[in-house]
Amino acid sequence: MAFDGDQLSALAAVVHEGSFDAAAQRLHVTPSAVSQRIKALEQQVGRVLVLRTRPCRPTDDGEVLVRLAGQMELLGRDAMAQLVPAPGASRAAPSSRRLPVAVNDDSMSTWFPAAVADLPADVLLDLRREDQELSADLLRDGTVMAAVTADPRAVQGCRVRRLGAMRYLAVAAPDRRDRWFADGLGAEVFAAAPLLAFNREDGLQERFVASVVGRRTTTPHVHYVPSQSAFVGLVEAGLGWGMVPEVAAAPLISAGALVEIRAGRHLDVPLYWQHWALRTPTLDDLTERVVRAAAKALRPVRRHGPPSTAG
Amino acid sequence: MAFDGDQLSALAAVVHEGSFDAAAQRLHVTPSAVSQRIKALEQQVGRVLVLRTRPCRPTDDGEVLVRLAGQMELLGRDAMAQLVPAPGASRAAPSSRRLPVAVNDDSMSTWFPAAVADLPADVLLDLRREDQELSADLLRDGTVMAAVTADPRAVQGCRVRRLGAMRYLAVAAPDRRDRWFADGLGAEVFAAAPLLAFNREDGLQERFVASVVGRRTTTPHVHYVPSQSAFVGLVEAGLGWGMVPEVAAAPLISAGALVEIRAGRHLDVPLYWQHWALRTPTLDDLTERVVRAAAKALRPVRRHGPPSTAG
Repeated sequence: MAFDGDQLSALAAVVHEGSFDAAAQRLHVTPSAVSQRIKALEQQVGRVLVLRTRPCRPTDDGEVLVRLAGQMELLGRDAMAQLVPAPGASRAAPSSRRLPVAVNDDSMSTWFPAAVADLPADVLLDLRREDQELSADLLRDGTVMAAVTADPRAVQGCRVRRLGAMRYLAVAAPDRRDRWFADGLGAEVFAAAPLLAFNREDGLQERFVASVVGRRTTTPHVHYVPSQSAFVGLVEAGLGWGMVPEVAAAPLISAGALVEIRAGRHLDVPLYWQHWALRTPTLDDLTERVVRAAAKALRPVRRHGPPSTAG
Repeated sequence: MAFDGDQLSALAAVVHEGSFDAAAQRLHVTPSAVSQRIKALEQQVGRVLVLRTRPCRPTDDGEVLVRLAGQMELLGRDAMAQLVPAPGASRAAPSSRRLPVAVNDDSMSTWFPAAVADLPADVLLDLRREDQELSADLLRDGTVMAAVTADPRAVQGCRVRRLGAMRYLAVAAPDRRDRWFADGLGAEVFAAAPLLAFNREDGLQERFVASVVGRRTTTPHVHYVPSQSAFVGLVEAGLGWGMVPEVAAAPLISAGALVEIRAGRHLDVPLYWQHWALRTPTLDDLTERVVRAAAKALRPVRRHGPPSTAG
């Protein structure tokens, strides 16, 4: 079945912008042109594709076609770039390729920038933080074409690749470690010590406590700090203890600003690269860069066996 | 009109958790108990308070009562803390007071941690990033009791206080500045130079360009990087130029890792402390800490006149 590129773009614009009016503005056409294109597309496939709600939401069938729209756009731009010699950075960018990618916050603030620092000049990044929306949803509805995520379950239409594991250490300011953990590392001690979590979905601290104590225990004194730099800064300032990526913690441990609560004990969280099952030079190049940067910064993960939780 | 504390808590739990079932879990009661409390409250005020959607949403009247619930909870806990001597950090925390506060990302990753690093041990932080939801919405529906925001418009039921201005510098890696801006700072040059923006709502870069060029111009080569540390790291790595808070840029400029695109030219963005119009010791103490930390880190703002856009 052949699809009309303008119709697919209209659908994608309505879903991404949230309304027919905003889509029309972005596409520089009238709202009624947008409406006609989507109706024509819905007649072609014989299904409703977008719910006329506020904001507009795609149906399941609509999601498939929004993803298709993004894939076709990328393929078209990649083809253009191969037809015309790639323009240097000093040209206006009608044919520049935008890469929408979701990245989990700890990767974003540690190793991921190295993967994309030297992108070709005609490629533009559009990064999303995974803690704002689930990367699976963003992949499914076509908002992003790839994601760095701890979620190993392949999204329909996507391929999954292991990147390695991010290692987390349990750390605190030295004087706080001495004060809070003077009586050892029992359940009572953890129940009384203040700790930091990224947000309510962040279960790393509880997993660490369970791995040390040997069972799940309650940790009622939780501060929620959803920013990696604020998180590390407040652990250093002594507000609580917390799980910090080894790559961020190591220099602070060397400088004596942080100490491990229990040296040698860590959590390894495997990370995955999920991307559209689509071969284009731009996406292949990005995958290669991400895999290379991850191999330098992350720990190797064994192919089989349960997630590692102890050192 | 006297309100029932359990009924208000049930309403707040449904709005914050998104469903009657999740609210019931949090409150350790049955879903039907939650439903009965909310029906009783709706009968008392004669209005629908919560829409039974997925997730459940408060009506306008519901928002007023959710805010009331949060305020009454805080007042009650503050009263408890005054009745009973404040427990040390080493006690379980039935009476610990949770402070939900929205903070804009650049403040979160620079000066704000210093404001809250030494909170009393029985106060727990619940920080939210303002870029995820507008702080006005979070204040209105009672999710947060205070916010650091660039929005000067007082939310109903809140007080606004100026904190000072965050100064932003336009910076790039030295070799990139030499390459991209060799021909001066005209509209053509800015149209060709790649730049970083935090997200689509981030208009700082465009404002800087307009202030230098003298009119609005297009800057098509935009990378979106919604993480302060990744943003600075990628500017340093040479992906594009961008507006970076002076407090974050200054050490990198001293170290020779970044240079200003135009020395002495900056943008000052006034920041405000919006908080519930409610006097409690916990909130007063937090306000004092925030104002003190802001005074150290931010620039003074003149009381009158338009926002400063040039140096």
